[in-house]
Amino acid sequence: MIALPRLLSLDEIMEKFSFLDDYSEGCHPTILEALARTNMSQQTAYGADDFSIRARELIRAHLGHADSNIFFVAGGTLANLTIIASLLRPHEAIISAATGHIVSRETGAVEAVGHKILTVDKPCGKLAPEDVLSVLAQNAQAPHMVKPRLVYLSNATETGRIYTKSDLTDLAQVCRSHDLLLMVDGARLGAALCAADNDLTLADLAELTDVFWIGGTKAGALIGEAIVINRPEFAKDFAFHVKQRGALLAKGRLFGLQFQILFETDLFFNASRYANDLASKLSKGIVANGFALASQTQTNQIFPMLPNHLVKSLEADFKFYVWEPHGEDHATLRLVTSWATPEAQVDRFIAALSKRV
Amino acid sequence: MIALPRLLSLDEIMEKFSFLDDYSEGCHPTILEALARTNMSQQTAYGADDFSIRARELIRAHLGHADSNIFFVAGGTLANLTIIASLLRPHEAIISAATGHIVSRETGAVEAVGHKILTVDKPCGKLAPEDVLSVLAQNAQAPHMVKPRLVYLSNATETGRIYTKSDLTDLAQVCRSHDLLLMVDGARLGAALCAADNDLTLADLAELTDVFWIGGTKAGALIGEAIVINRPEFAKDFAFHVKQRGALLAKGRLFGLQFQILFETDLFFNASRYANDLASKLSKGIVANGFALASQTQTNQIFPMLPNHLVKSLEADFKFYVWEPHGEDHATLRLVTSWATPEAQVDRFIAALSKRV
Amino acid sequence: MIALPRLLSLDEIMEKFSFLDDYSEGCHPTILEALARTNMSQQTAYGADDFSIRARELIRAHLGHADSNIFFVAGGTLANLTIIASLLRPHEAIISAATGHIVSRETGAVEAVGHKILTVDKPCGKLAPEDVLSVLAQNAQAPHMVKPRLVYLSNATETGRIYTKSDLTDLAQVCRSHDLLLMVDGARLGAALCAADNDLTLADLAELTDVFWIGGTKAGALIGEAIVINRPEFAKDFAFHVKQRGALLAKGRLFGLQFQILFETDLFFNASRYANDLASKLSKGIVANGFALASQTQTNQIFPMLPNHLVKSLEADFKFYVWEPHGEDHATLRLVTSWATPEAQVDRFIAALSKRV
Amino acid sequence: MIALPRLLSLDEIMEKFSFLDDYSEGCHPTILEALARTNMSQQTAYGADDFSIRARELIRAHLGHADSNIFFVAGGTLANLTIIASLLRPHEAIISAATGHIVSRETGAVEAVGHKILTVDKPCGKLAPEDVLSVLAQNAQAPHMVKPRLVYLSNATETGRIYTKSDLTDLAQVCRSHDLLLMVDGARLGAALCAADNDLTLADLAELTDVFWIGGTKAGALIGEAIVINRPEFAKDFAFHVKQRGALLAKGRLFGLQFQILFETDLFFNASRYANDLASKLSKGIVANGFALASQTQTNQIFPMLPNHLVKSLEADFKFYVWEPHGEDHATLRLVTSWATPEAQVDRFIAALSKRV
Repeated sequence: MIALPRLLSLDEIMEKFSFLDDYSEGCHPTILEALARTNMSQQTAYGADDFSIRARELIRAHLGHADSNIFFVAGGTLANLTIIASLLRPHEAIISAATGHIVSRETGAVEAVGHKILTVDKPCGKLAPEDVLSVLAQNAQAPHMVKPRLVYLSNATETGRIYTKSDLTDLAQVCRSHDLLLMVDGARLGAALCAADNDLTLADLAELTDVFWIGGTKAGALIGEAIVINRPEFAKDFAFHVKQRGALLAKGRLFGLQFQILFETDLFFNASRYANDLASKLSKGIVANGFALASQTQTNQIFPMLPNHLVKSLEADFKFYVWEPHGEDHATLRLVTSWATPEAQVDRFIAALSKRV
Repeated sequence: MIALPRLLSLDEIMEKFSFLDDYSEGCHPTILEALARTNMSQQTAYGADDFSIRARELIRAHLGHADSNIFFVAGGTLANLTIIASLLRPHEAIISAATGHIVSRETGAVEAVGHKILTVDKPCGKLAPEDVLSVLAQNAQAPHMVKPRLVYLSNATETGRIYTKSDLTDLAQVCRSHDLLLMVDGARLGAALCAADNDLTLADLAELTDVFWIGGTKAGALIGEAIVINRPEFAKDFAFHVKQRGALLAKGRLFGLQFQILFETDLFFNASRYANDLASKLSKGIVANGFALASQTQTNQIFPMLPNHLVKSLEADFKFYVWEPHGEDHATLRLVTSWATPEAQVDRFIAALSKRV
Repeated sequence: MIALPRLLSLDEIMEKFSFLDDYSEGCHPTILEALARTNMSQQTAYGADDFSIRARELIRAHLGHADSNIFFVAGGTLANLTIIASLLRPHEAIISAATGHIVSRETGAVEAVGHKILTVDKPCGKLAPEDVLSVLAQNAQAPHMVKPRLVYLSNATETGRIYTKSDLTDLAQVCRSHDLLLMVDGARLGAALCAADNDLTLADLAELTDVFWIGGTKAGALIGEAIVINRPEFAKDFAFHVKQRGALLAKGRLFGLQFQILFETDLFFNASRYANDLASKLSKGIVANGFALASQTQTNQIFPMLPNHLVKSLEADFKFYVWEPHGEDHATLRLVTSWATPEAQVDRFIAALSKRV
Repeated sequence: MIALPRLLSLDEIMEKFSFLDDYSEGCHPTILEALARTNMSQQTAYGADDFSIRARELIRAHLGHADSNIFFVAGGTLANLTIIASLLRPHEAIISAATGHIVSRETGAVEAVGHKILTVDKPCGKLAPEDVLSVLAQNAQAPHMVKPRLVYLSNATETGRIYTKSDLTDLAQVCRSHDLLLMVDGARLGAALCAADNDLTLADLAELTDVFWIGGTKAGALIGEAIVINRPEFAKDFAFHVKQRGALLAKGRLFGLQFQILFETDLFFNASRYANDLASKLSKGIVANGFALASQTQTNQIFPMLPNHLVKSLEADFKFYVWEPHGEDHATLRLVTSWATPEAQVDRFIAALSKRV
């Protein structure tokens, strides 16, 4: 069932294993090996290297969309702010769920490039067409109000939910009929596309969105996200924006090579699926031990609700976030798995539950 | 004389060797080996990893300045724009040589965060105290003119010149007496500090500047620059600015580990000195063959003036920039060496000169 | 009871009288007369004219705060964006009620100068200390979240409510103890200070806030707002910001003279009180005719709830905003009075109610 | 020869007459009278008043360009920054003469909205097609350099020179063939269009530029500039930008009425011509007294070079700027005339020259 081999034995890892996030380790060994193999090859700078060219071809092969252009940047906030600064004029605004990463986890990066975010309260983090229409209705008093122009989604959402093909098609349609652009933040796009109930593909994203990005950092890369721009008029000058925001890397080969490796084989998908599978195993183990989950996440983040005394004892062996209190004597935890999580640690966590109830 | 071993044999490299820049290869093998060794260690994200902590200690040991704080970002433009956005209020401006990297090679990144750059024409790229005073005198009509507040230097400059300790002391003094901040762009700080006629140290920079940064990308790293902030009031909230500009890396370990390796031994200095030494050997070989240099650079960039027919024949075997025409039938080239340049390629270039005149 | 004379006879005005807003007419006749009288006097430009100097003295006499500096700008949005751009550094954010004018009626002006607004849902538009504390608690994850730094209030609020001295003292205290700045948008400050249940003075505002502004446009002036900065460190470079945002008027005499006239006598207060008194008369007349008010506003805006058929017939003789539907067959209106509203029009409106029920 | 009546007798004015600038007085009496006449008329806010509608019609009648849209704002810096922020995307830059008002007299307002200005040294302040081509050539290294996109001219220039129809046609042609926009800052457009050797019309400006603005402040208005946008795609959302930058006046009637009066008769042109004629008389008187002019300005600014002792004695009776020293014992002055300058003051100045040599 689980595609990747266990990477380290229990002896090799730190005693207190971390389920804090999906970026605690370095990169997938295949990438590391490729970095070593190609290290002394002289390459053209600023993204015109052989690896970046090849990586773009490989990604484009998934898109089935000849017009898409691909740019690599170091991280998610840099991707979001560069995309938004390039797409919008000063009076144009973004529509986002209030849980959106750009709203509350990027230190006002979007406002710092000049744009307002109009938010919708949606605990699941998923925007629906009626949310978009409602924001349009509430912001119609031109020119005293900003002009909503871009719908921002995260897939998977910040709480681990995914958009189906039907969800995204409906949103794309409302965007097109109201002259709105659609972008998808794909920090955890791998997890979303490899979720059990996913029916969306990269080709769908290319078809339905104006811009989306594919997170590398959380899918086995050391660093890097691939921005996919599906409309030539937005791609035309995009390189200027990448450079202006400080996102143009001299040694662009670092990004190119990683995405080449991720997409030359199915590593991107396998690594993401591996993380999801372990999360699913963890979920089932938790439920089997009689505990509930705060929400039915579909990807590599799970939110079990455990009694406080058990949380305390688990903290001796594991690291995780205590997300919020749940009632008087329980707490909701966040546990995150990744391509690098040894299955043995999942087993060990489940065993710890059964022992300590 | 030359500290580092030749890294590759001639057979192993591409036939057409590139002297285009100092970022055509990956990273120093020692760094690569450390990446592999530490890859699966779980580390705290966002720069609180063990390697970043250690790297900061190692750099601070060079500074002799307990107050300095150190932050790592991916590249030079990101370093410059983040520093400047954090230091200045909207009406405050920068004083720079017209050749400054922020002026004409960063796609208006500084203006994009809201600040005007007041420039001084200096072909050598080195600002002197009288240049600063002259800008102050010309921009005194408050509030109709911006308020000069920050002096920006590059060391080495964009044309390969360096600041001596006396140069920098004089500038620091004029800054302090006119309530100006002083920052140094250190994209090629390694080359500057290892130049034959350099007498400046990292400790001097910590003493004399408010902020400077140490370029890793051109000194053996794959990616990364270390920003050193020498005044606590500017360091206090700097992490917010790093995050807001998209420069906070999830896997900050990548920066930390590289700078740990660069400063644990003297790799940072040795790699830079190696590049300078090869540039010096190349200079001497060119002059010995009867050609002149456009300027007496002191670091790893050299600017020979060669006849056009020779340039043409050299282009069969080497890559380099034809910088500008020189008279009717000559051209000025730019040749750059690095930690990765095989000495054999330098010898081969010099031999090509003697054969083809 | 009502201080100002009726300005025009019913015959002189347009048949369809407008209660749309408090800026439909020009300026108070006393100001017009002063403009004519001083027109050809040569005055120093950019706010150093005799009138501006005198106006500042007159306002300062109300403040009892030797440190306050006063600047004049053309309008409210310009005042807000200039103040905020001058007070905050890029990573710092504003706390405001969701109804705040800067949130939804200024086309993203604050975001366009780079700052995020953190909002609190308060239908009355009045922030309380616990609202501020709640925003602080929700935005504590440095450096991933912006740093709340400025509390923005409107007095009167956008829905016509006022802050008492005790309200403002409590807010000032929570600001001081949490290193937050406090600013008050005074677009309708005259109406607030002249409300029947007001106990706040300009001197209190100078004491309790860092910056506030006094709206001239809605209190009898043709154009202009007076920004009062109560801390010298924020006033020091403020003129640069005024100029940079395009708010420095060549003929600053226009602002200066109007504020001189408004504060030389008690015109500012009398004009505001007159508007409030007419609003109160209107309220009473509405209630006396058996209709309810949606909220108990305290200033010159009132929100009656009337049956739709009556609204329709009123529209033949009056202009006003239909604010929102109320149930199936009623609507809430907004009616605004001003220094220029003839009392006869208020009487006529009340008469129309009694006739048409 | 001189169209307007002398406005005040010598007895009525201050003893020390000011030639400092063309904005020392209020507004033309005809405007003042219209303000009084219309004061109590209720008007729709935010520029939809009857006067603004009429003023737009009157200006449009001069343009012969059905597509032009007209917006009013308070001052020149606000006009420039709003226009530029609305026209450019973040990576696009402006080409201007180094003497341009936006370069050194607007406190970095253009950079504060995010754009770099690429300057050309031209002492006369007039850009020529070859200047534009030269900036393009020097800024061609995409994406490391900004993309020049907008040519900014001032007519009259900051040193009093004007563009002929041929000058502007040549510039428009180079702009069109290089996908550049063309804007004209018309702070002193009245003076330019009424210069003796002018052959340019408002219709030419509408034909040749994308955007230009007509300065009201220096042509008899109390406040206000009219922005003329000649391309519908730039006018479409312009109102949002006006509001976002704080330039949308509640009582837009103030702008509308003034421009209605300026263009209902030929007041705009007559007032400007009157100023030019007096400047010409002053020039001739200076030359007739044996003194030279630093430059042959064509509008209402003149730059005589006088001996220092004479300058000193003139300062007893007049105010003016000592522009710069000229040799050891002379200085260049700047004298500015306006619609409000009494001819008797010009005569008095000339007489003072002859008496005191």
